[in-house]
Amino acid sequence: MDYPNDQAPGAPVRAGIPEHGRIPKYYAVKARIGHLVAQLGEGRPIPTERDLSEEYGVARETVRQALRELVLEGRLRRRGRGTVVAGPKLEQPLSLASYTEGVRRQGRTPGRALVGLEQFPCPDALAAETGLTRGTPVWHLERVLLADDERVGLESTYVAVDRVPRLDADFDPDSSFYAYLRERGVVFGDADERIETVLATPREALLVGTPPALPMLLMHRVSRDAEGLPLERVRTLYRGDRFSFSTHLRG
Amino acid sequence: MDYPNDQAPGAPVRAGIPEHGRIPKYYAVKARIGHLVAQLGEGRPIPTERDLSEEYGVARETVRQALRELVLEGRLRRRGRGTVVAGPKLEQPLSLASYTEGVRRQGRTPGRALVGLEQFPCPDALAAETGLTRGTPVWHLERVLLADDERVGLESTYVAVDRVPRLDADFDPDSSFYAYLRERGVVFGDADERIETVLATPREALLVGTPPALPMLLMHRVSRDAEGLPLERVRTLYRGDRFSFSTHLRG
Repeated sequence: MDYPNDQAPGAPVRAGIPEHGRIPKYYAVKARIGHLVAQLGEGRPIPTERDLSEEYGVARETVRQALRELVLEGRLRRRGRGTVVAGPKLEQPLSLASYTEGVRRQGRTPGRALVGLEQFPCPDALAAETGLTRGTPVWHLERVLLADDERVGLESTYVAVDRVPRLDADFDPDSSFYAYLRERGVVFGDADERIETVLATPREALLVGTPPALPMLLMHRVSRDAEGLPLERVRTLYRGDRFSFSTHLRG
Repeated sequence: MDYPNDQAPGAPVRAGIPEHGRIPKYYAVKARIGHLVAQLGEGRPIPTERDLSEEYGVARETVRQALRELVLEGRLRRRGRGTVVAGPKLEQPLSLASYTEGVRRQGRTPGRALVGLEQFPCPDALAAETGLTRGTPVWHLERVLLADDERVGLESTYVAVDRVPRLDADFDPDSSFYAYLRERGVVFGDADERIETVLATPREALLVGTPPALPMLLMHRVSRDAEGLPLERVRTLYRGDRFSFSTHLRG
């Protein structure tokens, strides 16, 4: 052991050892289960709550709290009545590439399930964000994002109807909207993006199939075409236990 | 009301209304308190738990759950024994600019409090990430990040000792490390960054002064100088209720 914190640089420093006071019991259990998770491979089951509480000599509730956090962090996942080691987070590049491309790059199969497609007049807030004229008809396309048939996110796209008037007729909701735009000669110019962490609402948790109040990564995007004209406003919610975002910066 | 979802585009769509089933009671209360928060200004106190539970005719525990989520999301914050409306999240640009510059740009005063500075031989994991030679002496600089004296994050910087041999002697820990590097002629070249959401460990929660298990934004950075030589490995934890990250993308 040549690393003073007994941790890789990406891991929490001296994780869980407050300078003052003792390590919370559940956290010590979490750290031990964490070591176990690192030894087992993806998809391998971990021992039951009862076995873990007997092995560590702690209450079942203590084990449960440790497991709950490991699930929220995406290191474990529930499968049927058991709990298995989760795979690594999907790493999505911050670029004008689509969700479809990002997921494919990692050898996963992207998919999308339609929640709804509706038309309404552009409200003030959307007009202010995008530069569209208030009252212009816009589509709202809402889809659940899938990776290898697993539900991993929820996406709302707002786009002017006159950009894609036949969206309800000739767009396959399980395909890339960006590919659809490209086929119609739309060229992406630039976009502003903002990422934050939020808790899933009950409706979102239901649609994405996550525990309520799971931390999610919320991505806001406002994009323009090559002429600088308003293109779309996107709100994408990604499971915080399944995604990370990466970017390359130059000086 | 001309917006079918009764929501701004950045807000959750038809928030909290599952297609099947009823709205959870705590969530309905959360939505009502959310409207109240929007009417009050930053820093204004909200009514007590008891008053809210009487007004809405629900149990105190129901109000408590709603308040807890609003606090975790950064819409409310605890102040003394009361709860007040929080300010907007700090928006940090994803760029090679430092934390200091990002916070200043928003009219806040950045600060840093030293947790520790120590030297150790570069371990395998850090060598693999940065390109430093295993065993090379490296500094580990750990600081709490402040904005207007409020603790908002925790940062660990790993840098080769031969880059900044006198770091322990002539660096003011409450100043910008990047400004310190620039003064010594170091020019940033490029960096790889990755953002994810994690839960605060007990130690991190203690150092940052947050409730345990608050969702945090964790930023990993590996940077190189203008010659492409290893510069630093940074691990920065930002309070999820206080920060968002923004970027501008070009096609």
